[in-house]
Amino acid sequence: MKTNPYQVVEKVELSKIQTLKVEEGGKGKLKKISKKISKIQNKMYAHGKYSVLICFQGMDTSGKDSLVREVFKSFNTRGINVHSFKTPSKTELEHDYLWRHILVLPERGTFAIFNRTHYENVLVTRVHPEYVLGENIPSIHSVDQLDDAFYHKRMDQINNFEEYLSDNGTIILKFFLNISKEEQKNRLLRRIELEEKNWKFSGGDLKERKLWNNYMDCYEDLLNRTSSEDAPWYIIPSDDKKTSRLLVAETILETLKKYTDIEEPELDKETQANLQKYKNMLENE
Amino acid sequence: MKTNPYQVVEKVELSKIQTLKVEEGGKGKLKKISKKISKIQNKMYAHGKYSVLICFQGMDTSGKDSLVREVFKSFNTRGINVHSFKTPSKTELEHDYLWRHILVLPERGTFAIFNRTHYENVLVTRVHPEYVLGENIPSIHSVDQLDDAFYHKRMDQINNFEEYLSDNGTIILKFFLNISKEEQKNRLLRRIELEEKNWKFSGGDLKERKLWNNYMDCYEDLLNRTSSEDAPWYIIPSDDKKTSRLLVAETILETLKKYTDIEEPELDKETQANLQKYKNMLENE
Repeated sequence: MKTNPYQVVEKVELSKIQTLKVEEGGKGKLKKISKKISKIQNKMYAHGKYSVLICFQGMDTSGKDSLVREVFKSFNTRGINVHSFKTPSKTELEHDYLWRHILVLPERGTFAIFNRTHYENVLVTRVHPEYVLGENIPSIHSVDQLDDAFYHKRMDQINNFEEYLSDNGTIILKFFLNISKEEQKNRLLRRIELEEKNWKFSGGDLKERKLWNNYMDCYEDLLNRTSSEDAPWYIIPSDDKKTSRLLVAETILETLKKYTDIEEPELDKETQANLQKYKNMLENE
Repeated sequence: MKTNPYQVVEKVELSKIQTLKVEEGGKGKLKKISKKISKIQNKMYAHGKYSVLICFQGMDTSGKDSLVREVFKSFNTRGINVHSFKTPSKTELEHDYLWRHILVLPERGTFAIFNRTHYENVLVTRVHPEYVLGENIPSIHSVDQLDDAFYHKRMDQINNFEEYLSDNGTIILKFFLNISKEEQKNRLLRRIELEEKNWKFSGGDLKERKLWNNYMDCYEDLLNRTSSEDAPWYIIPSDDKKTSRLLVAETILETLKKYTDIEEPELDKETQANLQKYKNMLENE
């Protein structure tokens, strides 16, 4: 079987991976693929056994929001929920760090999209370890304790969690939208210059941008430690938004196509045998 | 350190373990211990870092309900939630089998009591494997697939889950209320003979009683596979209810006493420094 070239299967170095790729096809092609995926979505809904969890991570301006909008355009909203995870609330912090993500896992037959995900627990909290103190973990008293071992243990926990979900019927795909630092600069400038994009800009974005290299180190480490056959990471070149959307859509389609055993469930034999009777009953009402 | 004699630390054979033990002390002693635990509860609530998960399993009539009532009598209800898990609902079955348990895990500083627990997923569903089909796991098509390996994998998943909770600040205790088949007979007869106890009886109880040996085999296997230092099982002789309650209460107290680092949090320095000022403000209002 041909492997998807963007899937993380062996050790990667982010600095050596291209962020720009331009594919032909554009919107027309994306629409076609999106429709194909939505057909599988309908089948899965009727089948009611698998659930699908699609995770998106990426630096500010990497195009997560618009990608979600475009790739799932043809979906029946009945069977898909998008969750954007922001700073955890006080109630969420009263629980273990996976809890708020588990609450909104997809029901059987449905899709959940995580826009930023449980991986922020080994990412933004690794770049800013002081955030972990807010979690009130009893054994953690100072940021000095938050060494690599702490975050690697979390990654092991996340691996166990995803393996368990997969064993129980969740199909998991994880996408890292990989942009260059230069492209982020262009996009941030556009947010400042175009008035209708102003709302997306905040001074804090520049502060985080200064930590670019820290973020890349943390991404590289997590990509290398948490990509598995059942819950693979895909590193998507995202300097060109149209290409990035297309690659994500193609990957989703390619994954879901493997579940060819899915059929709308058959009517039980009794109902099947009596269909004509039911028809008569209705007609003679 | 003295080990609790009821803790499962090495391989056990249920048929060789006593179900009857009678301890002196009765209600007075229980009340005293319960009060001590509730004092720790108050400290934990203010401390707000640890949460406590206490699990009860046992055959019908083993005394779970009344034990929970008596042992936690002195508790401030603000910081304790009891969850009795019945047959899973349709919504619950739309998710992985741990989901409904995770939803109601205790917040930091509080206690959760599970009366019947996530272990029913390797117990009642092992004695009645057809129940697993109702979970709609995509890879499971018939009960023939539900071999020992299937349930042992679940136990591994549960071990991972509990280790994760423990690492993130949950103190876990698990009690198996161990009664004899003979004592169950007496208690079922009492439910039939005493009118005020009738509501607790159902014909199905006798059906399950016929599967006593199957249940014991499944209990023995799970006790041997899922007792760990961070989430130990205790096998409590429960033919005498008063003793059983006392032993459970003593075990909880003994476990919580280890968390001696817990203190009500100190006021931050600024508030501390200004307490006199605040006092003056109130007095001169």
